[in-house]
Amino acid sequence: MKALVLTEKNSLPQFMEREEPALEHEMVLVKLKAASLNHRDIWIMRGQYAGLRYPIVPGSDGAGICEGREVVIQPGSGWGQDERFQAGGYQILGLPQDGTFAEAVAVNRSQVYPKPPHLSMAEAAALPLAGLTAYRVLFSRCKAQLGEKLLVTGTGGGVALFCVQFALHAGLEVYVTSGDDAKIEKVKAMGAHGGVNYKSDSWEAALKQMAGGFDVIIDGAGGAAFSNLLKIANPGARIGIYGGTGGAVPNFSPQAVFWKQLSILGATMGSDKDFASMLDFVNQHKIVPIVDSVFELADGANAFERMQKGLQFGKIVLRIA
Amino acid sequence: MKALVLTEKNSLPQFMEREEPALEHEMVLVKLKAASLNHRDIWIMRGQYAGLRYPIVPGSDGAGICEGREVVIQPGSGWGQDERFQAGGYQILGLPQDGTFAEAVAVNRSQVYPKPPHLSMAEAAALPLAGLTAYRVLFSRCKAQLGEKLLVTGTGGGVALFCVQFALHAGLEVYVTSGDDAKIEKVKAMGAHGGVNYKSDSWEAALKQMAGGFDVIIDGAGGAAFSNLLKIANPGARIGIYGGTGGAVPNFSPQAVFWKQLSILGATMGSDKDFASMLDFVNQHKIVPIVDSVFELADGANAFERMQKGLQFGKIVLRIA
Repeated sequence: MKALVLTEKNSLPQFMEREEPALEHEMVLVKLKAASLNHRDIWIMRGQYAGLRYPIVPGSDGAGICEGREVVIQPGSGWGQDERFQAGGYQILGLPQDGTFAEAVAVNRSQVYPKPPHLSMAEAAALPLAGLTAYRVLFSRCKAQLGEKLLVTGTGGGVALFCVQFALHAGLEVYVTSGDDAKIEKVKAMGAHGGVNYKSDSWEAALKQMAGGFDVIIDGAGGAAFSNLLKIANPGARIGIYGGTGGAVPNFSPQAVFWKQLSILGATMGSDKDFASMLDFVNQHKIVPIVDSVFELADGANAFERMQKGLQFGKIVLRIA
Repeated sequence: MKALVLTEKNSLPQFMEREEPALEHEMVLVKLKAASLNHRDIWIMRGQYAGLRYPIVPGSDGAGICEGREVVIQPGSGWGQDERFQAGGYQILGLPQDGTFAEAVAVNRSQVYPKPPHLSMAEAAALPLAGLTAYRVLFSRCKAQLGEKLLVTGTGGGVALFCVQFALHAGLEVYVTSGDDAKIEKVKAMGAHGGVNYKSDSWEAALKQMAGGFDVIIDGAGGAAFSNLLKIANPGARIGIYGGTGGAVPNFSPQAVFWKQLSILGATMGSDKDFASMLDFVNQHKIVPIVDSVFELADGANAFERMQKGLQFGKIVLRIA
């Protein structure tokens, strides 16, 4: 079969022939029609995971045909019995097993779910990992509710955009930050109530003036900006953390946390229950993932380059013939 | 009446005559038999609260007689309707109103609860603010449960000791840290399973080896040590923060929080519901607060000095004739 293969560290993937995956016990083959990129794929290209061995087919997200049915793949497996956290054996498709940037992928039967009927294959492929992460942090962890004020930082990324979409459909009042004014305008066009550029001075004061304060804040960055989030959180607020691209927080105040009775809630990926709930929510509200761009699988190297530049708004999708 | 009065910043309280408090609408007079000190009283002496005006009678904790019944006082008032956080008008007895270090105090009728019958007046007076704070952070916020492994940092302080006592009665496996080996031995004598001196090298590794990891961690310090708590937290752990005497955390890692699906939960004081639940729990388990020492009200300045030195194990109580 054809696949995008990472053959060595720090090199773009090559479109090449790859052996079709073997089916072990309880596995099924999904003939892929579309896949989508995550930052995880870039980090795999850069060799940033322990135990990583090339060549490897990256890709966690995919949609296609399995045993005659249109399906979307839950990228995680082995979450385990406790909804609160993933078990030690938890794995995400694309490392160490070959992933979805190929004509076919082998997954556990339990990872295959019906594709939401209102979505194209490209749209469905955009959904799994980012949608799952967004759903878990926003609803399973932060219990975001109708009428609450939500701030989503770093909008433009996949998880952040799904948080915005899900929250708007759940009836929250949504505000965002971004380093790109054009992205803020796009999110406002989707229905978000306001946003500020985090490169501007006193962005947190501007947000505070705009919204009053936030009941829920979803952040994937951490770093120095995080302390400002504590300041604009309402008493009793929940702050969901799903990433830390900005690094450690240099000056984290316990006082703000205890005095305002804040809850800081970490989340990554999600359980099978989270995934099923997320699909139900997407089906119920007919949510359509935002697709930034679609590349042919053969042109996958260009998709990786676009992802690395960080210019995308929504998900970058690969079409698989 | 006689009272301990703070007459100026940074001076020990004076035992002197003070006008009996006036009873406004819905207030009752409690004839105090005992009171207990909190760090808050020291901070009031040091002038560390906005709007503080001397002279003032400090004291948040008290037990005594009200309308012929033996009572203990809930120090907080005006929590408001939302269990998740205190309302803007929330106040704690002893600032700005005169507090419990006196022969009588005026409180709202709703702040008066029956004294647990198994407790002396001195023991009952040791309970309210620290017991309330411990109950809220441990149970209402962190949902500590039978069989879980708990770490309580800085044991010796009032809140930390109540956490240890409550958790042992709730069937948790309890570990502690302290800067004083003698305090660790005392807590082990109470039934705690182990403890380490946080002044020793690699204290967090020693704890990890001892317990494996912690499901719940209760911390009142923050500071540089806090990052070690994230390392020895189990996946899905809850970390309750009720204070920050060690200052800001210099290097707070979002990665640890999201990858281990941690919940960092701030708590301070507690609602009327928390207070009633705490009293129920104390009555049900016949818990007796640990009293470090008892001073006559007239000798209150020495009680303040003992508190400032930080040598106490348990609560410092004032006996009121």
